[in-house]
Amino acid sequence: MIVVMNHTATEEEILKLMEELMSSYPVQIQKITGQERTVLGFVGDTSGIDTTQIENDSRVYRAMRVREPFKKANRLFHPDNSIIEVGGRKIGGGDIAVIAGPCSVESEEQIVSVAEDVKRSGATFLRGGAYKPRTSPYAFQGLEEDGLELLKIAREKTGLPIVTEIMYPQTIDKFVEDVDIIQIGARNMQNFALLKELGRTRKPILLKRGLSSTIEEWIMAAEYIMAGGNDQVILCERGIRTFESYTRNTLDLSAIPAIKKLSHLPIIIDPSHASGLAYMVEPMCMAAIAAGADGVIIEVHNNPAKALCDGPQSLTPAEFDKVIGKMRKYAAVEDRQISEVK
Amino acid sequence: MIVVMNHTATEEEILKLMEELMSSYPVQIQKITGQERTVLGFVGDTSGIDTTQIENDSRVYRAMRVREPFKKANRLFHPDNSIIEVGGRKIGGGDIAVIAGPCSVESEEQIVSVAEDVKRSGATFLRGGAYKPRTSPYAFQGLEEDGLELLKIAREKTGLPIVTEIMYPQTIDKFVEDVDIIQIGARNMQNFALLKELGRTRKPILLKRGLSSTIEEWIMAAEYIMAGGNDQVILCERGIRTFESYTRNTLDLSAIPAIKKLSHLPIIIDPSHASGLAYMVEPMCMAAIAAGADGVIIEVHNNPAKALCDGPQSLTPAEFDKVIGKMRKYAAVEDRQISEVK
Amino acid sequence: MIVVMNHTATEEEILKLMEELMSSYPVQIQKITGQERTVLGFVGDTSGIDTTQIENDSRVYRAMRVREPFKKANRLFHPDNSIIEVGGRKIGGGDIAVIAGPCSVESEEQIVSVAEDVKRSGATFLRGGAYKPRTSPYAFQGLEEDGLELLKIAREKTGLPIVTEIMYPQTIDKFVEDVDIIQIGARNMQNFALLKELGRTRKPILLKRGLSSTIEEWIMAAEYIMAGGNDQVILCERGIRTFESYTRNTLDLSAIPAIKKLSHLPIIIDPSHASGLAYMVEPMCMAAIAAGADGVIIEVHNNPAKALCDGPQSLTPAEFDKVIGKMRKYAAVEDRQISEVK
Amino acid sequence: MIVVMNHTATEEEILKLMEELMSSYPVQIQKITGQERTVLGFVGDTSGIDTTQIENDSRVYRAMRVREPFKKANRLFHPDNSIIEVGGRKIGGGDIAVIAGPCSVESEEQIVSVAEDVKRSGATFLRGGAYKPRTSPYAFQGLEEDGLELLKIAREKTGLPIVTEIMYPQTIDKFVEDVDIIQIGARNMQNFALLKELGRTRKPILLKRGLSSTIEEWIMAAEYIMAGGNDQVILCERGIRTFESYTRNTLDLSAIPAIKKLSHLPIIIDPSHASGLAYMVEPMCMAAIAAGADGVIIEVHNNPAKALCDGPQSLTPAEFDKVIGKMRKYAAVEDRQISEVK
Repeated sequence: MIVVMNHTATEEEILKLMEELMSSYPVQIQKITGQERTVLGFVGDTSGIDTTQIENDSRVYRAMRVREPFKKANRLFHPDNSIIEVGGRKIGGGDIAVIAGPCSVESEEQIVSVAEDVKRSGATFLRGGAYKPRTSPYAFQGLEEDGLELLKIAREKTGLPIVTEIMYPQTIDKFVEDVDIIQIGARNMQNFALLKELGRTRKPILLKRGLSSTIEEWIMAAEYIMAGGNDQVILCERGIRTFESYTRNTLDLSAIPAIKKLSHLPIIIDPSHASGLAYMVEPMCMAAIAAGADGVIIEVHNNPAKALCDGPQSLTPAEFDKVIGKMRKYAAVEDRQISEVK
Repeated sequence: MIVVMNHTATEEEILKLMEELMSSYPVQIQKITGQERTVLGFVGDTSGIDTTQIENDSRVYRAMRVREPFKKANRLFHPDNSIIEVGGRKIGGGDIAVIAGPCSVESEEQIVSVAEDVKRSGATFLRGGAYKPRTSPYAFQGLEEDGLELLKIAREKTGLPIVTEIMYPQTIDKFVEDVDIIQIGARNMQNFALLKELGRTRKPILLKRGLSSTIEEWIMAAEYIMAGGNDQVILCERGIRTFESYTRNTLDLSAIPAIKKLSHLPIIIDPSHASGLAYMVEPMCMAAIAAGADGVIIEVHNNPAKALCDGPQSLTPAEFDKVIGKMRKYAAVEDRQISEVK
Repeated sequence: MIVVMNHTATEEEILKLMEELMSSYPVQIQKITGQERTVLGFVGDTSGIDTTQIENDSRVYRAMRVREPFKKANRLFHPDNSIIEVGGRKIGGGDIAVIAGPCSVESEEQIVSVAEDVKRSGATFLRGGAYKPRTSPYAFQGLEEDGLELLKIAREKTGLPIVTEIMYPQTIDKFVEDVDIIQIGARNMQNFALLKELGRTRKPILLKRGLSSTIEEWIMAAEYIMAGGNDQVILCERGIRTFESYTRNTLDLSAIPAIKKLSHLPIIIDPSHASGLAYMVEPMCMAAIAAGADGVIIEVHNNPAKALCDGPQSLTPAEFDKVIGKMRKYAAVEDRQISEVK
Repeated sequence: MIVVMNHTATEEEILKLMEELMSSYPVQIQKITGQERTVLGFVGDTSGIDTTQIENDSRVYRAMRVREPFKKANRLFHPDNSIIEVGGRKIGGGDIAVIAGPCSVESEEQIVSVAEDVKRSGATFLRGGAYKPRTSPYAFQGLEEDGLELLKIAREKTGLPIVTEIMYPQTIDKFVEDVDIIQIGARNMQNFALLKELGRTRKPILLKRGLSSTIEEWIMAAEYIMAGGNDQVILCERGIRTFESYTRNTLDLSAIPAIKKLSHLPIIIDPSHASGLAYMVEPMCMAAIAAGADGVIIEVHNNPAKALCDGPQSLTPAEFDKVIGKMRKYAAVEDRQISEVK
């Protein structure tokens, strides 16, 4: 960390500030005196320091990190890509995960049918919402516990590991037992209570980026989970909120190279929620693969027009089959592949 | 709700869709046939219908609400302003709440000293963070339970009711017992699990607007609490996330007339978190009062330069005294006043 | 300017960079060597240096200004408020400008009627669009030159100085001759060709903030005009583009204290275009005055429902009369007044 | 267009409004009477109608288009992809344009050297800024007319057609004579004066998307040019302004399928300006191709660390060579190719 002092700060004030900081944090501070300004250089662990707090000091002009505030998620300390393995399928490295399924689990017939369809096309995971975060308290909130049971039936019939979103802290034990990858939704990305609880488990976590979260905040949310001892985190970009309303959100594909540079964690893309438009799923999947994503999560419904939620963005199984086929070709360009059970 | 059909939809398809919708929702639908398009008009309770779901249907061009999706928070069904009364202080109507105190509770000496100072100046509530939502897992997370105890001591010494943020569902009972107004932070505005739990209590809730929440989503979050039976909700605008980085967030004061028009709930303003700059607190407080806000929540610290969090935006007690004095003058312009215990 | 070097930069590289920079810009650079990093401190005129260009250098970690990039608009070099005087009316200091009139000039009867109405209520300037920037090439583009003539008639009949937007560089001479304050619209805020041309005139310029311009970019646009020798610039906040769609734009009232701190130029507020909603004009005007604005620009139309553009946000003359009356009360709180011809 | 009336509107008011509208615009209106609301359906050319103006009417609840407001740029009326041919190179259809060169033209040696390098690698066009839009009036504004001359020298030596930005209306004749594709920068996207002038020429125009322009506004800007008779428009997505500051702007790749659906015009991507980071250029180019873009525009500099502007985002010629090689592989996946002179 570098702290630039105000030009009005006196020598005495500067020494006093240095003393205060060194007694509060595990750091050494070196004073470098310039002609107009004094600059303080920090050596040590600055991850617990809040730069805005330092800047509050009337003697300080500006504080800036010269190192990212995350540690366990930082590629600097873990140069190799993390590869998460679930049920024999790899996510990361050269292996691309294709997670497919309906927005909501609606019935046994529906979820089993979709699961069988996407399995046949080559999907590696089954997704489906049992607990649904809905803007309105009067809207369908998902089949909840029954939905989880139906997902388990679909897993049994197809062998596909299941990915589903958690909303209630009191259901964690059940999720740990029943679910293969636990999803944290965009609205809960900074639900620190939930992040801490999931950090205590050893389950793979799919962490969606918040609607208006910066890349750094998103990695810091992963850091919350990892700080608890669970380093099985998969990041998922699902669109950010901008002024543009043609698409529901704006898919930020530059997050892929950004995450690859800053972190070793795998990153997957959710083109369905990002755009809210079925016709964009195909081109955005291809773009995601070409940009280096480790996977995609796609909504597939056997009858999109009747879907109890988010129908407009769902593909039919036939459309999905075409998309995954094309994805294979794009993956092959740089010698990657959709992961298969070994 | 009005649904505009695609011009390609056949008569048979239209009738089939109407049938489906009337069997799924408690509505009557009238078909109005135009020269180029058919339009469906809904009569009944459409609050459980998701317009995007309707639009997904290939036969549908667009669905639009002609009534807001919220009911209990809607001014239409509750024309008078809601007035929340806590410990003899009113919020709403002509009464303006001034909630003041430090970002974080740090020590008994600190919180009692600030409480006594702001009480003397005329503050109506004491705020102070015990559980702190922090971007980094390595940053100070608040004194937690001990912080709550210190707030209670400060309340005992000054008589000021206390406002503090809840983060963990398992602490709800304690908060209900100890706290006068329970705050939901911006990051938890769509933590539906927490909203539902707090809907079951009968405590006043201060509901901060999410960083990128629309006004409608914010009112819908209040609706979650009210749907549970708790209608003691105070809305709090605290800045939204935009491209502008000079201020930490962009304070959206037009939310005041918007909320006043759409809802009967009181709305207060948090100029400290919105701007992140102490010098903006005074003008933004005056603007909030002039725009019709029912109160403000201001960070006051006896030693801002040493504040364990958010120092740069805190006022000293002397600065706060000046601000509240000026607020009284602005409140008087339209015959309002800072609420006092009767 | 402070430049933090990469920790990999060698002593030789650092000296070479210093040499390059000192030969390219009128600056002296002092090298301050820390334990882990070297920092360069610049003394001299750094306004022509692009920090991103410096950061591009592989030897550099980060470059940061310790002084704003604007000079003529900077309060640092001009501590007193600038007061612009037009036709005997002051803008700035304790004097508040009230600029009122229709979005578009439509007919002699209309503009004269509105001008007489707003004059009677106490408006200090007449606004009215002759050349209209319209999203669609097929929409009404204004009466253009004829509109200017009608504005001049209205000025003759009421004595109100006129404010209107320029769009075409070839009309500058005409505007300089005919118009009292030349407005630059939001879409042209970074039309540097136009800014430079207007910098060569000595006419007062009303410079609207761009839809997605930062406060710094906006002041830099003023700097373009001032660099040409024209220091008669009035800034106008008119809402920024955000994710919120309830209001057309988000009125950023925190721009008022920001501009007051950074610059000596007067700042006025346009609540009509910001919200796009007539009912918000009154509360946002009061908020603007309370926050310290030097004026407001308000759309008033004698028949809003028939307005050829932007009707929904226009006040009737009767509504305007009520708003200006209330503004007088808010202005009086801090001993300010709506400016009058002396 | 569909207009939903307020439920308070009387039969007489509705008929009056219909009459007014039919006398102002070339439309027929059909009244469709529902149980609770009356809806008006418009038949005819509604492109000159401003929906917000209609909504302003107190008798109207909401007005919505059922057809896009653009005509000449609309795919509906021009189902085939437009292919722009410049100097024997095609843009659109299966042909991908690769426009490469430095941000600014700095010297003959520089521009010729870069031109020869990118030509050798297979670039199809040379870009280079002669007139530079700079935030600061004190920053380097480009070599201007001399820059144009240097570009012409580079074209002569390499045969590459040149693309460069216009800023001053008075230079249009010169640009028409000297330049192969005239670029309109993001800041001038709604400089309607400039758009109209360029609409009168028959030169291909590269129209960059404004920093905060919606997709519809961007197409409407193209429509301004096309309405003047010039249908040689190439759209260029270059990042939009959002809250995220890790990248300079947020590259909106979903604009590619959106434009492809709404319009027949070719669309290219500028990954250099969007991200402001050289390391993102490669993955974002691949993503753009995979998403269906008709080309890319890339900054290449023979010495990025010394570039007079925008160095951090420039590739070296060697890096560019690698990127274009990889782009060929991605283009081949769906049988497309980088365009070559026939």
